[in-house]
Amino acid sequence: MTRTHRLDCDVVHYAWDNATPPKLTIDPGDTVVMNCRDSSDGHFRRGMTSADMKPRAVKGHPLTGPIAIRGARPGDVLHIDILELIPGDLGYTAFNPGGGLLPEDFPEAYLKMWELDGTAAELRPGVRIPLEPFLGVMGVAPGEPGEHSTVPPRSSGGNMDIKQLTAGTTLYLPVSVDGALFSAGDGHAAQGDGEVCITAIETTMTATLRFSLRRDRKVSGPEFETTRPLSPRTNAGHHYVTTGIAPDLMEASKEAVRAMIRHLVEVRGLTREEAYVLSSVAVDLKISEVVDKPNWVVSAFLPLAVFG
Amino acid sequence: MTRTHRLDCDVVHYAWDNATPPKLTIDPGDTVVMNCRDSSDGHFRRGMTSADMKPRAVKGHPLTGPIAIRGARPGDVLHIDILELIPGDLGYTAFNPGGGLLPEDFPEAYLKMWELDGTAAELRPGVRIPLEPFLGVMGVAPGEPGEHSTVPPRSSGGNMDIKQLTAGTTLYLPVSVDGALFSAGDGHAAQGDGEVCITAIETTMTATLRFSLRRDRKVSGPEFETTRPLSPRTNAGHHYVTTGIAPDLMEASKEAVRAMIRHLVEVRGLTREEAYVLSSVAVDLKISEVVDKPNWVVSAFLPLAVFG
Repeated sequence: MTRTHRLDCDVVHYAWDNATPPKLTIDPGDTVVMNCRDSSDGHFRRGMTSADMKPRAVKGHPLTGPIAIRGARPGDVLHIDILELIPGDLGYTAFNPGGGLLPEDFPEAYLKMWELDGTAAELRPGVRIPLEPFLGVMGVAPGEPGEHSTVPPRSSGGNMDIKQLTAGTTLYLPVSVDGALFSAGDGHAAQGDGEVCITAIETTMTATLRFSLRRDRKVSGPEFETTRPLSPRTNAGHHYVTTGIAPDLMEASKEAVRAMIRHLVEVRGLTREEAYVLSSVAVDLKISEVVDKPNWVVSAFLPLAVFG
Repeated sequence: MTRTHRLDCDVVHYAWDNATPPKLTIDPGDTVVMNCRDSSDGHFRRGMTSADMKPRAVKGHPLTGPIAIRGARPGDVLHIDILELIPGDLGYTAFNPGGGLLPEDFPEAYLKMWELDGTAAELRPGVRIPLEPFLGVMGVAPGEPGEHSTVPPRSSGGNMDIKQLTAGTTLYLPVSVDGALFSAGDGHAAQGDGEVCITAIETTMTATLRFSLRRDRKVSGPEFETTRPLSPRTNAGHHYVTTGIAPDLMEASKEAVRAMIRHLVEVRGLTREEAYVLSSVAVDLKISEVVDKPNWVVSAFLPLAVFG
């Protein structure tokens, strides 16, 4: 007899710490409908603009949880079926000096607020991003004691920002502590592979997740399985693609995104900031080859579906 | 009045050199049906096995060309419509000590010969790779004088190994010398993003390409535009995905591929070498995020379409 639980986000936690007591304890096979705050902890509100980007203390992602799964123990695999993801109706994309892939190119803070109508978000007239919602953060408590930042992902999951973790996907995480202690947050309504400006279309999320335990297999880090073709809403048509060719994958990534920004400005008439935002929320970075010494190729794929 | 030319591969060249005289001179708008040798220059033949992997001198990719386009001059963009690509009926995938993404894991040479039936290639019973053919090498002569290796890609194109350059795609290359001097080769019947073992399903290719010149735009490196959804034959179903999480994209790529090889061995029963080959010819590396300091995520996507 499995059950469905509800878990609100009135109280959240801002760090990974395996001493954080569970907010909910469930049996394997149970489902949880979780409400998650956005990554700004509700700071960004309708009507704000870049002028509202003031320096402020940030505590980390506000996470809903932890959820303890009865019987989970180190070495198990936590099997999470992502059943449903419902984003909020307001989103934001922002960058500050010093963050993102191209901090040297974008020294000024920038904010874009989005209205989300359930299917798309408009950057400007004629540029609409199809929504493919997922949770940027899903993870279990790390084995190491103490507080750990929510920013970097790690083998226990966390801020993975993997856009393919949409509804219908099953995520596998290695359990490090008794009860597993799962938490989630950082809802994204849409994102490109790379998340290059440092934010996606950030929003609140209501997530329905089902948890079970697997002892028939081992994983050493996050693994997952999808149940539909990838990116069905953006892979519906053509792509425009730029490349970065360099002896370092980071440098190649920067070159590819810089070429994409130039393209979006020159051919599509976007501002440079709009082009960086569009690259972050819709452009996918692929490693085309990583073996032709000394130069690797990273390609940046813009789905032309965003132009309607 | 445009024309269609034929260009054989009886004589090839093995280096980029803007002093190599053109084998063919065409007008903008003309089409060329080019025959291309495989990347081993015909060395690998039906019936060969890993036991035939002997050290040998390699001259570089055998390239068909150069083709001079009348009127092309430095600063122009060469516009190449990839109209048709017909792979041969025999393929190979090989790796030698010291090459590829994981040389430390695979110290022994390995060879897999493939029969190509026009739609798929079988790794072992139950594991069939859908063919999505493209040319690993397409490029124009570099501006710098002298001989340049065909192995690394560069801003003038070359060994880009970009799997999405399939028929229907338009490639843009910046012209560095009068006539552009286009050459191509290195046919691939199928490849994953990354080409991790250092070879794809390598084969001969008959390529039909149409060339024109663009002065209405500039590119500083290769760019291209697709005209259909990406990877239609492998993105038809589910994917199994492993991740690499590390402060360096190269290390993250290695971790993701090592996890994929473990998965393929443990869950799918492949040998380690078969798993490395399958990762090279069918698994796609994506940069999931490159901004969550200090850890980046590279994800390795295995299309389950290969299991029928």
